[in-house]
Amino acid sequence: MSIPRIASLQQQSISEPPPPPLYIITPTYRRPEQLAELTRLGYTLKHVVNLYWLVIEDAEEPTPQVTKLLQKINVPFSHLVAQMPAKYRKNKVKPRGVSNRNRGLEWIRANASDGVLYFADDDNTYDVEIFDEMRYTKKVSMWPVGLITKFGVSSPIVKNGTVVGFYDGWIGGRKYPVDMASFSVSVRFLLSRPNASMPYKPGYEEDGFLKSLSPLKLTEIELLASNCTEILVWHTQSKKNPNAMSLDMGKYNNTNLVHLRNILV
Amino acid sequence: MSIPRIASLQQQSISEPPPPPLYIITPTYRRPEQLAELTRLGYTLKHVVNLYWLVIEDAEEPTPQVTKLLQKINVPFSHLVAQMPAKYRKNKVKPRGVSNRNRGLEWIRANASDGVLYFADDDNTYDVEIFDEMRYTKKVSMWPVGLITKFGVSSPIVKNGTVVGFYDGWIGGRKYPVDMASFSVSVRFLLSRPNASMPYKPGYEEDGFLKSLSPLKLTEIELLASNCTEILVWHTQSKKNPNAMSLDMGKYNNTNLVHLRNILV
Repeated sequence: MSIPRIASLQQQSISEPPPPPLYIITPTYRRPEQLAELTRLGYTLKHVVNLYWLVIEDAEEPTPQVTKLLQKINVPFSHLVAQMPAKYRKNKVKPRGVSNRNRGLEWIRANASDGVLYFADDDNTYDVEIFDEMRYTKKVSMWPVGLITKFGVSSPIVKNGTVVGFYDGWIGGRKYPVDMASFSVSVRFLLSRPNASMPYKPGYEEDGFLKSLSPLKLTEIELLASNCTEILVWHTQSKKNPNAMSLDMGKYNNTNLVHLRNILV
Repeated sequence: MSIPRIASLQQQSISEPPPPPLYIITPTYRRPEQLAELTRLGYTLKHVVNLYWLVIEDAEEPTPQVTKLLQKINVPFSHLVAQMPAKYRKNKVKPRGVSNRNRGLEWIRANASDGVLYFADDDNTYDVEIFDEMRYTKKVSMWPVGLITKFGVSSPIVKNGTVVGFYDGWIGGRKYPVDMASFSVSVRFLLSRPNASMPYKPGYEEDGFLKSLSPLKLTEIELLASNCTEILVWHTQSKKNPNAMSLDMGKYNNTNLVHLRNILV
């Protein structure tokens, strides 16, 4: 049985100009699933050219195991930290990821002048096609996200090529009832809105950020994924795992388990 | 800000002989998460050279959307089906994936003569390093799996370079208390055991299959992941999603939602 050799997904000749850069903002935090989630997201992003990965931990210091993993995966990255302000940490429903994403926006304002930004949580699933589509966003692009709420999908409602509303299991009085994974923003457009940021308001993070980009007409939203008829992003969620049990060191001294224990959260 | 262009992960000159082939057996079944899971697994496998992906559905016919996805990801594949025998389908705890994996073994016996086989469920997470390590398996290789049971890891216990036992949250009288994702088998070794197969016995699938490969001494097991001190595979599990609600066709006629409805399970 002979198996064809696999060519790289993205091959470009040296003479072609590179496409506009993509800035992928991934908020993350220490938990048993963290390294696994970043691993599979990293391998997806590695198929995309001219991409810069901003991995931003809600932590005091960057976790060394995360830095090591990012170096190993070898997608161009910056590993930053941004802690949730103390006053929100006592909340029952925490505004998770907001400090991280605002830190990402700050980095982009300081370092980027063109291209496109996207908030990509570490537990979602992405078809690489969406990255090549979002790359040419002029202001704000949108598309459907699968596996979310009782409807099974969240999407702009599109009629004759324009947004006429939003289909989402929870509207909650939002102007933009969309998921974090459903839109990209051009860097130039962000820079033209110096006050745009994400509010610390659970459930209203996307809506608040998109409103902070106003004025933005619904008719200006660029529709991707074949006019929102395809699902190229899924809101997958991993089952939470408990922290690992502590190891009986007397029993397992001088075995490999001592090394494994040091890796576990 | 200039971003380095990304080179392909695996580049080999044409003159180098290809490494031994890897046969990856992935059992799957129709559910809302299926396309997402296969997407991210496929993008991981796409980084590995000389790999053949056997995607085997527990279904009467191959699902067209799965075939389309496999063609799009473009890892060399066969899309097969193998239904769970009717007598097991009424069981409270079903022997899920067994008919699929036995179908994969049958395919390998008919089509392969060398290389290595591995059972890779679609919801796990794999560091690509494990594929390059398992490729040189002589009989059976083993390594730790993270995020499993209350211990947070399942692993052979290794002392002075040999297996002295198994660390797993559930032993259950098994000779090999290991996870499906924790071992690979050489094709030549499988072919030397013409009766080896997986039993329809929930919880004892791995143990039954490994026993069916006997004789196999614990000292013959090849230890990967730096003598089982690293975690390169995680038993991630996705949260189950309900099937999507049916769409009010009167209300959303003539919109993109009609197309999205046809994609949802």
